Formats: sequence, C-alpha cells, structure tokens
Amino acid sequence: MNLNVSQKIIKDHLVSGEMKPGSEIGLKIDQTLTQDATGTMVMLELEAMEVEQAQTEASAQYVDHNMIQADSRNPDDHLFLESAAQKFGLYYSAPGNGVSHPVHMQRLAVPGKTLLGSDSHTCANGCMGMLAMGAGGIDVAQAIAGEPFNVKMPKIWGIYLTGDLPEWVSAKDVILEMLRRHDVKGGVGTIMEYYGPGLKNLSAMDRHVIANMGAELGATGTVFPSDEEIRRFLKSQQREEDWVELKADEGASYDIEETIDLSTLEPLIAKPTSPGNVVPVAEVAGEDIYQSYIGSSANPGYRDFAVAAEIVKGKQIAPGLSFDINPTSRQMLADLVADGHIASLLASGARLHQAGCNGCIGMGQAPATGKNSLRTTPRNFPGRSGTKEDSVFLCSPETAAASALTGKITDPRTLEMDYPRVKDPDEPKLDFKLLEEPLPLEEAKKVEIQRGPNIAAIPEMEKLPEDIHVPVIMKLGDNVSTDDILAGGSRVLPFRSNLPEISKFSFEMLDETYYERTKEMQYEKGHAIVGGSNYGQGSSREHAALAPRYLGLRVVITKDFARIHWQNLVNFGVLPVTFKNESDYDDLESGDVIHMKNIRSSLEKGNFIPAVVEGKDKELELEHALSPRQVEILLEGGLINWIKEGKQKTP
Amino acid sequence: MNLNVSQKIIKDHLVSGEMKPGSEIGLKIDQTLTQDATGTMVMLELEAMEVEQAQTEASAQYVDHNMIQADSRNPDDHLFLESAAQKFGLYYSAPGNGVSHPVHMQRLAVPGKTLLGSDSHTCANGCMGMLAMGAGGIDVAQAIAGEPFNVKMPKIWGIYLTGDLPEWVSAKDVILEMLRRHDVKGGVGTIMEYYGPGLKNLSAMDRHVIANMGAELGATGTVFPSDEEIRRFLKSQQREEDWVELKADEGASYDIEETIDLSTLEPLIAKPTSPGNVVPVAEVAGEDIYQSYIGSSANPGYRDFAVAAEIVKGKQIAPGLSFDINPTSRQMLADLVADGHIASLLASGARLHQAGCNGCIGMGQAPATGKNSLRTTPRNFPGRSGTKEDSVFLCSPETAAASALTGKITDPRTLEMDYPRVKDPDEPKLDFKLLEEPLPLEEAKKVEIQRGPNIAAIPEMEKLPEDIHVPVIMKLGDNVSTDDILAGGSRVLPFRSNLPEISKFSFEMLDETYYERTKEMQYEKGHAIVGGSNYGQGSSREHAALAPRYLGLRVVITKDFARIHWQNLVNFGVLPVTFKNESDYDDLESGDVIHMKNIRSSLEKGNFIPAVVEGKDKELELEHALSPRQVEILLEGGLINWIKEGKQKTP
Repeated sequence: MNLNVSQKIIKDHLVSGEMKPGSEIGLKIDQTLTQDATGTMVMLELEAMEVEQAQTEASAQYVDHNMIQADSRNPDDHLFLESAAQKFGLYYSAPGNGVSHPVHMQRLAVPGKTLLGSDSHTCANGCMGMLAMGAGGIDVAQAIAGEPFNVKMPKIWGIYLTGDLPEWVSAKDVILEMLRRHDVKGGVGTIMEYYGPGLKNLSAMDRHVIANMGAELGATGTVFPSDEEIRRFLKSQQREEDWVELKADEGASYDIEETIDLSTLEPLIAKPTSPGNVVPVAEVAGEDIYQSYIGSSANPGYRDFAVAAEIVKGKQIAPGLSFDINPTSRQMLADLVADGHIASLLASGARLHQAGCNGCIGMGQAPATGKNSLRTTPRNFPGRSGTKEDSVFLCSPETAAASALTGKITDPRTLEMDYPRVKDPDEPKLDFKLLEEPLPLEEAKKVEIQRGPNIAAIPEMEKLPEDIHVPVIMKLGDNVSTDDILAGGSRVLPFRSNLPEISKFSFEMLDETYYERTKEMQYEKGHAIVGGSNYGQGSSREHAALAPRYLGLRVVITKDFARIHWQNLVNFGVLPVTFKNESDYDDLESGDVIHMKNIRSSLEKGNFIPAVVEGKDKELELEHALSPRQVEILLEGGLINWIKEGKQKTP
Repeated sequence: MNLNVSQKIIKDHLVSGEMKPGSEIGLKIDQTLTQDATGTMVMLELEAMEVEQAQTEASAQYVDHNMIQADSRNPDDHLFLESAAQKFGLYYSAPGNGVSHPVHMQRLAVPGKTLLGSDSHTCANGCMGMLAMGAGGIDVAQAIAGEPFNVKMPKIWGIYLTGDLPEWVSAKDVILEMLRRHDVKGGVGTIMEYYGPGLKNLSAMDRHVIANMGAELGATGTVFPSDEEIRRFLKSQQREEDWVELKADEGASYDIEETIDLSTLEPLIAKPTSPGNVVPVAEVAGEDIYQSYIGSSANPGYRDFAVAAEIVKGKQIAPGLSFDINPTSRQMLADLVADGHIASLLASGARLHQAGCNGCIGMGQAPATGKNSLRTTPRNFPGRSGTKEDSVFLCSPETAAASALTGKITDPRTLEMDYPRVKDPDEPKLDFKLLEEPLPLEEAKKVEIQRGPNIAAIPEMEKLPEDIHVPVIMKLGDNVSTDDILAGGSRVLPFRSNLPEISKFSFEMLDETYYERTKEMQYEKGHAIVGGSNYGQGSSREHAALAPRYLGLRVVITKDFARIHWQNLVNFGVLPVTFKNESDYDDLESGDVIHMKNIRSSLEKGNFIPAVVEGKDKELELEHALSPRQVEILLEGGLINWIKEGKQKTP
C-alpha cells in the first residue's frame, strides 16, 4: 500500500487497534513535552503513579507560561519542576530559555518520531516530519511512564501546496486561509498533511507556524514531510545526524484532498473573538489599535522578528501604541541581538520582553479597555488577553509591524517600501545549555523534590455511581473553549498546582456564580453541564476537566466535543455524552434534573445512554464514543484509580 | 557668607522663610517628576485644583512602575496618564522607556535647579548638582501648578570624599557604607552633600547611585557639585549647553562634617530586612541564593550592567538560579546591545526583562519561599519583593554577578579574574524620542482625558472636628515603612487610581484585620494609630496616608516621623503628633480610647496637644511640629479643601 507521511509514522508506532478512521489506536510515544502551566500536575501524577524514570527517548519539561513571579508561588513551582525533572529523568528548560515548541524544535525534534505534549500547540513540531499531538497532562504522564497514547485514528487530510507566496504574505496567512475556509472545528478528527511543490519556499520555521495553528482547526495533528529543508534546519542546529528523509510514497492518497495555490493568498486577519473569524486585512484596515504584538509559538521564528524589525527600522511607531516584542527563545534572541534587529526594534519604540509565552496566555500585556490589539499569537478567545471584554485580532508579523507604524490596522502591501525578505540564519548562534540534561538514574534517585506551600496533592476521586441523578447547573452555547472553562492568565495560573484553589475560578468567564452554586449543591451530589458544538476547544489544560470534577461535575452533554478536552473528561471520571437528536439541546435548560439509571451497565452494554428529564417527562437519547478502555477508566472514576486498580494492560 | 552647594541652590529658590535648620521654608520648584504609581493621583489632583497648564520649566510623567498589564487596569492608567500629560503640558515617557530617575537625568536634569518628584528616590538627580526631593503627590501637583514647596530647612551634612575605590568596590558600596554608619534614619532632616578629591573618579551615574539611596538614610536630599564630570555627562547627552558649574565657595562650612576614604572600602551588603542592616559581604559569603538581580534606580548605569556582563562573559550562571537583568532605560539598553554586553548576559543564562522598575517595586520577579535573593535595588523591606516572608540582600552589581556564577553569596574579590573596569560611554546612542514633548496650550486644551473604568475621583474629606475621640486601632513598632502601610506590588498597584479599592489593602502586611475592623468601627467615627520611631519611612506614596484616612484614620501618635509621610498625613487631614515623653509609648495599647478636646484651638495656640487616655485616667503630653500653614491645612481637612477654600496665598 502506498502510504502518506502520517500513515507511515502511525504504522511505525502502532501498538494496538486498526488504522481505520474513527477506531481507537494505541501509539508508542517517543518524546514528550510538558510546560509549567500543565507540568506541575503531570509531575504530581507521575508521583501518584509511582513512576521511577521516564521511559521515552526524550522528555522535556519547559518553563515558559508562568514567569511573572508576582509572589512566591511561581518561583516555587519552577523549583518544584526543576527538581521533579531531575527526579524523573527529564530535560529541564529554565524560565527565560523560551517557548517549549521552538526550543523543542531546536534541540530535540527528530523526523519520524512521535511527540506527545501537555500543550495544545504541541502539534507545532509536526513541521519536523513528526507526529506531534497535544493531550491532557495525565495522558502525557502515561507516555512518560512508557504507556501508549490512545486516540481515534484520524482521517488524513492532504493539502497540496503550489506556487510561491507573494510579497508581504507569509506562513501565518497560509494557516489563516485554512481557518477562513474551515473554521475552528473544520479539522476535528483529522491530521492535516501538507505536501507539494509549494513547500520548497516554506522554511522549517514557516512550517512551524502552519503546524502550530492546526490546533485552532481542531486537528489531531499537522504533519509535514522531512525534506532537504528539514536537513538544512537540523544542520544549522548541528544535529544533521538526526535527519531522516520522510515523504509520502508515490501514489499515496488522502482521506480528504485540498489545494492551496500560495501565489493567490493575501494578508489575512482573524477578527475578534475566534481564530476562525478570518477576513482579508484590507477589509478592516484603518481601525485604530492600542497594541501590536510580535511573538508566541504561532510566529516563533527569527524571520518573524527580523521582518518586523526591517519594516520599522529607522522609523518610529505611532505615539501611544504599545509595540510588544516577545522573543521565543534565548538562542534566537541572541541572533536578533547580533544582527542588529533588536536595536532597530528598540529604536522604533518597541517594548522588549523576556523570552516566553507572556501575553499569549494572558500573563501580562493585556490591552486597554475598549481598544484593539493586533497579535501574531494563535488565539483570540474572549478574555484570554487578560482584559475581560477584549478585542484581539490575529495576523502575520508583516501586518503587525505595518500597523505599529500607522497606529491603525494596515495591509502591509500599502507601505511605501520594498518587501524586506528575510531568511532564517544558516549558522545561528547555538545555546547548548538551553536544556539541563536528564540525570542518570543513580543520581536521580538521590534528588529530593522541592515542594513549596502552594503545591497540593491530587485529591482522591470516587468511582462512577450506579445512578446519576443531577441537576443541569448551566446550559452553554457552541465553541466553549477551555479558556472559558478555566482561564489562563496571571490571576489563575499561579494556582495550577493547587486544585482546591484553582477550582474557584471555574467557568467564571461564563457564569460567575458557578463556584458558589456548586458549593450550595454540595459537591458529592454532583451536577451536569449542557453544551453546544465543539465543546472544550483550545488549550489542552486538564484543569478544565479536573477542577469542575472536583466541584461535582459528573456529566457533560453536548452536540460534540473537541478531542483533548473530551479525553481529559474521561481521564478524570466525567462522562462525556452527545445528543442523538441535536434538537434535544433546545429542550434542555438550566435547572432541569437529569436521571441516568444503571449508568454503569449502560456503559458496559454499548454506546447508548438512556436518560430522562425529571418533571418534564422527557426521555433523552444520549450517545457516547468511548472505547472499552475508556469505559473501564470512567467506571473506576478516572485514570489514576484505573492504574491503581491494576487495570492497565501494557501491550 | 561662604555657601556650600545646597545652600546656594536653596538661596536661589527661597520664596519664604529663613534658612535656619528646622524652620519651614518655601522653595520655588523648577522641575517635577511623577511616575505612574503615584502620578494617576497627581493628575486627579491637578483636575481637582482646576490647573490648566504646568507652570514649571519642565515637568515629566513617566510610566515605569506598573507595566505587567495583568488586565485592563494598567494599560487604562497608561492611556489616562498620557492624555493627562498632554492636557497639562507635561513631558510623557511611555512604558518601556525606562525608570524615571535615569531617564530624567539623561533628558531633563539641569545643574542648579530644583526638582520635586512624587517618588522617594527623586533625590537621585541630586547627582547632577540639583536639589532633588521626593514628596507626596499632592505637593508635586502644587509645584506643577507653580506653588512653592514647603519643607523644613535641613541641616547640611558635608561628606568629604578622599582616595580612590579599590578594585571590585563601586559606588553602591559607598552608600552602603553610609547606611552602615548611620542606619535608616541617620539622615533625617538633612541634605547630604558630597565633595572633595574623591569625587574625581565617581562618574555622574556613580553619583546617581549614591544620591538615590540617600532616601534610605531618610535624608531630605543629596547634593553633588556640578563639575567637569557633569559637563562630560551632559555633553554625552548632547546637552552641554545645560551645564553650569556649581561648587561650594572656598571656606564654606557644613552643619555636620564627615569623611570617607574611598580606598578603605570593601564590598558591603545589606542583610534582610532593612537597608541599614549592612555588613561586609565576606561576613555572609557562602549562603545559598535563589536569585541575583541587576537593575533599578539604585544601580541604573551602563557601567552597572556592563561590569556584570564582563564578569559572567563566557561563563555559565549556577544551575537553578534566576539571574534577572532589568535595564533601566531604552537608551542605555541600546548601548548594552551594541557593545555585546546583552549577548554576554544572555549567553550566561540571564533573563532579560523590559526596561523599568519591575521587581524593585514587587512587580514580578518575586523569590521562591525561604530562598535568598541578592539585588542591586535600594530596598529590602519585608515583603516588598512580592514574597511574604522574603530574604532580600542589597549589594553592588559586582557582588550580584559574582554570586550568580557561584550560586552563593560571594565576595567578588575572591573571583579568579582581573577586575573588569568599565566606564560609561562618552558617546552613547541617544534616543531623543524617549519623551513625548509637552503640547502647546492651544492644542492641550483640545485633549480629552482618557478615563478607564478603574479611575475613580478623589472623595471629599470633612474638616477637622472640634474633638477627636477615637480608639487606638493598632500599636506598631519602629521603622514602619509605607510598604507596610500600603504595599506596592502586582496585587495592589493596579488600584492606584481607585481609592475605595486600594484602601482594602491598608496595613495588611502588619495586621490583616485592619480593613475589616475599620468597617466595623464605622469610618466616620475615626481611629488612631500608635507608632514607634521613623514612622512612614520609604516610598513617597501618598496613598499610605490617603487610604487609611479614607478608612477613618484621624491621628497618628509616634516617637518620630519620616519626612514625606509626615507631610502626606497633613496633606490629607490626618494629625501627626509625637510623644513629649517617649516612655508614654509603652503605656499605650491597642483598644485604648484617646480623647483630644478642643483640638482645633489647641492647634491654633501652639505646639502642645493635650490628650487623655480614657478609662486609664492617664494624661498624654503630645506635640506637633506643624507650621502655621500646615495647621491651616489640617483644620480644613487637607490640602485640596484648603485650596478650594482659597486659603492659599501665592507669594
């Protein structure tokens, strides 16, 4: 059979299941990635699972999200993570080294391998010919322990690229074009595989941009071939020996086929408040802005900063504008400093911040009330910037820099200057100390994990009861994101290792009374949530499942789920079900009491879950898409219980 | 009469009073400086006073304290400040330009002039042969409006410098030596004037270091002569025309005389939790550290960063250490980038932050629980770092950089390398756009002040009553700082323009129940606070007077006060009195009820304030040191009322 790249990697790593779209497969995981916002919980889970050392080829713990250090909780978490990384045999990347995805690409990514990360943008490393996927923290903890990752076999979506990008149009416009065409759930259940002659002028970092925001399409992963450009990139990192060629077989086919002629693209922009809300920049040009922001894993390359620097060189940004420069890695910042680009940016009036995720995850850099913010970041969900009723647009570095000069949203093609075409350096400055190496087992055994007062153990969870008999505490709409369920940002992130505290912030973006009402209802009795379509999109944070579960969430009933959050719900013992008849959504309301009798045996029998709405005399036909393994996990009350009960059967 | 430099400047600016130490004088103010943490209130006060345009030679509004932007409140304040600066004819320095004191020195400082700033470290510009003083915001608002600044004529303390600093010893060690000798209230009521042959090897920026931390000695100001070095500095800023020579007359004398032989100094360090707790570095060498921190107005020079860069060049900092680099101005950062110093710092493992005050004022960069932090900042009051029970040491950049390499407190003289002697550049890169120019009056009139939802007007305050009859809500010890009274930091600073909100944080460092108890007592009935010696030292923030006043504070009874806070209490209608017999302090306790009868007439009669402690049958002999002008202000219930009542008589 002639295989495409995705199928080749899956075949190489298949430990269970069939490569039939929709059926659960188990994949061997070669590498893992965790960051600080999700990693503290992963380390606690490794402890709870009594894991001794990482069983992967390479696992790395990055600190990039939470670096403000408003008080001792942040730095305590950093010391906890560093010592845990030493204990479990992980690489450790200290605050200031940069964002996990580009740093992983520079130091550890290897074509043909699988990478699982507790960050939804883990898919970015698909640019290196890897199958890179985001997952909940506990799934990553399992992978670190050597267990396979279970996921539904995706459809493979081939995107054939032809032509060259016009001047002033760059990789970000390619992925914005995909979002314009398919919106934020268009990629659910698929791997997006890019190929074709159009690739030849897309650098490894350009591909990173495209692969990264596959997350915004809802895709399971994004895959590029490993070609001469990947060899060049690895050589530039003095890792040419890690290169293997990886391309689709002659005559390989795709489940879905699509073409983009790059030469037809123009500068695009996602309007508030969804990455799928894409229009040509020209359509919104002229709107005043407060902020222009360069950085994040969605535009992490040297080129992305250098092109902005060349655009503003010798000029001054608009008065009153905040031009925020967020370098993505220490190594890349060194090149930008050496090549004079940082000097150009500073002289133009830019604010230079430490390397990291920063405002992309709401850790500072919030825009002013009622003002527009232009960002090269991947997401503009409401409030994610830190400002409650924000107005965030997503665009390319070219558009962001052009707009910084004018103070208005500006199509960069209208600037009176030649397009400064910049390439990533073939001989970048390398910083081999970006990552602390894993300790050998004997030394690791001696490490004492450093535990600050804010680091709380994971509470025990009870098994799924026989009957679920719960009120609907909230009815929500479509595209609820995990930012809505449990915000990031500087108020909330410092509690990522303290479940009782962080749970108080649950759903506050959508309903400020949620926490108080769960208390009144008494947690142990439980409650249900009703949602629309694409429920749980966005960040992979498992706290968005764990915190409501802690407050009594038992069932989520939706039209459909985003993949990672769906898995996270199962992992923490919350039943995710969908309406057989979507019209039933309209009949449910907050306050309705749902009764699911003999739920344990319903789950064991099949995919149908009968339920009634009490008082309304209404029967609900509900379905689930759980694998037998997932049903077992749910019955036990979650993955940790399942492991402790010895139910895990390592293939 | 042969005058010293301080006397010359005072004589030149005297509009009322006599130059007799201890008696109130009125001084014409040529320049003002406000920063964002205090400036929002100053702008509200200018509005309340119906000021049209600044009457000074130069007034500048800086944004340097509060730049995290965790939500919309910070950036709303920035827009408010920028538009207010335009309205009132002030220079405006945007976030990212750097710390007010070095930027003011680069752009606006002029020898022989007076500068009043709503920041306690305003004294730093005394390095330029200015009389530069910190004051409460409303005093600065008055100065902007063209009114004189009233202050007690200080004693002039001459510090005769001889010799040259040894290798590895720098300006910070000079001021730490002064703190070692005289502790945190040693300078109260004085101007410290440095002179002598030892000056010749102290650059303008070295003098800034020494002048800046005059605030920690409690001094009213620090003054240096304006000599050839100041001419060199102004020339390097392309402002040689602003230079005038200013030196003491032959045979001038000082009220207090002191000598420092620079060649005898060694590296010094202030231990937690007071800047006066100074010992030789050698005495604490070997203690583990979590953090090493370079920056702040206490070590703002190019040299301070360059020497650290040279020390760590080609080496790696200790693993797990946070090496925080906080550039102090955009202009200086450009030089450090161009000269390769930023590259050296980054390669060593440093974290490069945006130019500003940052962790110095608790805006991020808090140390981990129970870990030592080494900082070149001016203050280590408990909790100011953001970590409640912190352990902060203050030292020179040499000591901080040496310790970053070893991970332990390290006397830099023990490093095995030659001392990298660095000088400030004679031709620095200049950034003339650091400051937005004041608008002409006609344009200013058209400016609409931008007011975010967090910007609240100042509430009205009632007049001083006939009788004060109030309970003592708290009894406090010596050296209470304004950080104790109302913290800085990322939780509190965003409320600086919202009195009802910020008042909730009053005194929480010392007594978490204060706010709740004032509510229970009902504000209007009022309360008293009893304090020890040097009450209200530290930051000039007037919120430390205004917020407790808002909650009902009527009287503060202490052994003695720090100058700026004492003035702030008067300005907001709180009576500051001292014990005639210090032993009465021991007899008072929380809960005692103080009764001051006919307080208005007592104040008008003289300096004696009779009072009784009810129930204890104890009479208290209390005194005040208020000028007749200050008595008038108090009777009216504060400065704003006094102005509104037309009591102000402009000379």
